[in-house]
Amino acid sequence: MTAGLLEQYRERIRTELDRVVDFWLKYSHDKEHGGFFNCLAKDGKVYDELKYVWLQGRQIWMYSRLYRTVERFHRPEILEAAKSGAAFLQKFARVQASGGPGKCAFCLTRDGRTVKVQRTIFSECFYVMAMDELSRVTHNKEMQADAESLMDRLIFWVQTDSSDLGRPQLPGDPPINSMAVPMMLLCLVDQLTEGRTDVAEKYKDLSGWCVERILQHIQRDGKAILENVTLNGKELPGCQGRLQNPGHALEAGWFLLQYAMKKGDVQLQKTAVDKFMEIPFHTGWDKQHGGLFYFLDVDGHCPTQLEWNMKLWWPHCEALIAYLMAFGHSREPVLLERFKQIYDYTFTHFSDEEHGEWFGYLSRQGEVVLDFKGGPFKGFFHVPRCLYMCEKLLDALLESQDS
Amino acid sequence: MTAGLLEQYRERIRTELDRVVDFWLKYSHDKEHGGFFNCLAKDGKVYDELKYVWLQGRQIWMYSRLYRTVERFHRPEILEAAKSGAAFLQKFARVQASGGPGKCAFCLTRDGRTVKVQRTIFSECFYVMAMDELSRVTHNKEMQADAESLMDRLIFWVQTDSSDLGRPQLPGDPPINSMAVPMMLLCLVDQLTEGRTDVAEKYKDLSGWCVERILQHIQRDGKAILENVTLNGKELPGCQGRLQNPGHALEAGWFLLQYAMKKGDVQLQKTAVDKFMEIPFHTGWDKQHGGLFYFLDVDGHCPTQLEWNMKLWWPHCEALIAYLMAFGHSREPVLLERFKQIYDYTFTHFSDEEHGEWFGYLSRQGEVVLDFKGGPFKGFFHVPRCLYMCEKLLDALLESQDS
Repeated sequence: MTAGLLEQYRERIRTELDRVVDFWLKYSHDKEHGGFFNCLAKDGKVYDELKYVWLQGRQIWMYSRLYRTVERFHRPEILEAAKSGAAFLQKFARVQASGGPGKCAFCLTRDGRTVKVQRTIFSECFYVMAMDELSRVTHNKEMQADAESLMDRLIFWVQTDSSDLGRPQLPGDPPINSMAVPMMLLCLVDQLTEGRTDVAEKYKDLSGWCVERILQHIQRDGKAILENVTLNGKELPGCQGRLQNPGHALEAGWFLLQYAMKKGDVQLQKTAVDKFMEIPFHTGWDKQHGGLFYFLDVDGHCPTQLEWNMKLWWPHCEALIAYLMAFGHSREPVLLERFKQIYDYTFTHFSDEEHGEWFGYLSRQGEVVLDFKGGPFKGFFHVPRCLYMCEKLLDALLESQDS
Repeated sequence: MTAGLLEQYRERIRTELDRVVDFWLKYSHDKEHGGFFNCLAKDGKVYDELKYVWLQGRQIWMYSRLYRTVERFHRPEILEAAKSGAAFLQKFARVQASGGPGKCAFCLTRDGRTVKVQRTIFSECFYVMAMDELSRVTHNKEMQADAESLMDRLIFWVQTDSSDLGRPQLPGDPPINSMAVPMMLLCLVDQLTEGRTDVAEKYKDLSGWCVERILQHIQRDGKAILENVTLNGKELPGCQGRLQNPGHALEAGWFLLQYAMKKGDVQLQKTAVDKFMEIPFHTGWDKQHGGLFYFLDVDGHCPTQLEWNMKLWWPHCEALIAYLMAFGHSREPVLLERFKQIYDYTFTHFSDEEHGEWFGYLSRQGEVVLDFKGGPFKGFFHVPRCLYMCEKLLDALLESQDS
């Protein structure tokens, strides 16, 4: 019976992935200037021409990964699109003048002029992720070296000196351990080390450091995952310290579980599931209307983020990956139950049957509030990565059941 | 009959203003470090101790203005609170090191350490507004000079050279005419020139410049008010160019009307009402659920701001002032109708009968989504300024009807 259910999931997920890939192939390519349009209306129409570097990098990564690892996506047009995106980023993303070497823009005009530079590391992270993955397809050693050298720069900014990022040190704002940073670096280590023992050796300490930093977010006697903590792993005062982002914790959950499975670390596998999946799932699930809240305050105060009670697509994507990976690992039926619960909400609320792709932003009650398919923070990434990974996980599950 | 209605409004507004003042007097004062707590839960409890400079400045201004111009608020505790706030800002707000001279922080810790500096002019604007108003009460010439000198700095940043603000000039992000800047400066000119002909003479050109810049936001053959335009008053491309913020346009409306009445400029009086009130009111009013949308796209695309369809307190406050001022000016019954429509929505949805003060953030459907009374962007300002100005306007209206 489980096999039948898993088959159904795989069928739907595979179809959905095809539709999502088709949507972006059809509507997002800028044939004049290269790169991708990010702002696509529900029917695919471009409603703004700005190009967001996070999303450009993510789209290059996703196309390259699909091309490299899924036979039906091993198509020239997908590779060409990834290359076009990479050429655009290589030409325009770096803003050496206003930051230190390696600093990338956050947002560009259609023809590549810098619109905005964030004083954080994330544009650079997605640049690294993109170039490494594409270089695996094209065997372009120079591109791979470029990715690795920017990775080393990132590590320097995070671990040694962040002054190149341009953010002044202010006496009331000491550096903190924000979940995004160690998560992102752990994700990059996973990317760069695949199939390369020498690189894995080089970043061994870094991945340990990332895991330690992520685990510091377990707070309140192991009963809560908090988004921001001190560098010593203590709770911060005020709203910043009490903030919970259930989708982000769930994403950290599968990053940790994946890492722990590779290492054969049984204790960390358990922590990944018990702390980084079960806690945010129980805290974050809206018992009244279904779906995962975007932000919560651990003491029950009202978050100050205006969108706190909205249901966003990406936490649901990350939750699906997390629970399917956890189920694949332990075969605990309760984990498949969770997957089912999230799956049912996600596929009935986010997927757009009419035009393809997913809506991104629902009200607490589950109505579509922002109806575009691509925007400044929603690109070709969380949806296809979720569908891609779930398809792979289901392949493995079904294969093991057959045998 | 109208007089009876206006009496009812005045009674309710007066009572409401008393309750709002009581709320902030009771809960917001930091007796240990000076200044005000900004983050107050629905019952007044402090849920975060950060101090936002915009809100500190606005609270000083509002206390001082009430003390100076409303007999029942001419109370020592109100003056003392304003002075405490000013002392806190004078001691801690300036961050000379990281910006040019005069640059103020955006956010401070409870004990005054800088948490965040925005690369804009608004912290400085509210500093000027606060110090000028308080100096009118205390006759402190030094404080008045401090306000005027920072005002001159602001004008330099806006009209001559903004590099002190620390925002790099980026090739894809040329300077634009954002509605907030000329509005804010016009508001400050009004503040600084009250009863001072020499200062009025000094800033005569500036107020003309502000009005011209505000009028550039009339676009689409006079049928739309757009939030951002080029420095030549042309429409900008993309989402930024198509953005409408009805509450902001309505606020600009009463700034313009007030200015035009002082100048006796009949044409500008008409523009203020027809363009900056009637257009945003008709565009912004939610015909289905009532209330004013926060953001809209002039071509009907979905705005990318997650909160676009929420109903926020401050656009409703500004709309109330706008229409009551417009009615007081022309006595056109339709303008009182508009006031009534906004008043009915506002008083039934935002005001909290249980604990006093107003909620700030409702869903499109009108339910309270964020239930705090004070937060990073909501302080002692829009609500009491609205109630204060409406009370004054109603006093004048009723007085003129008696005679």
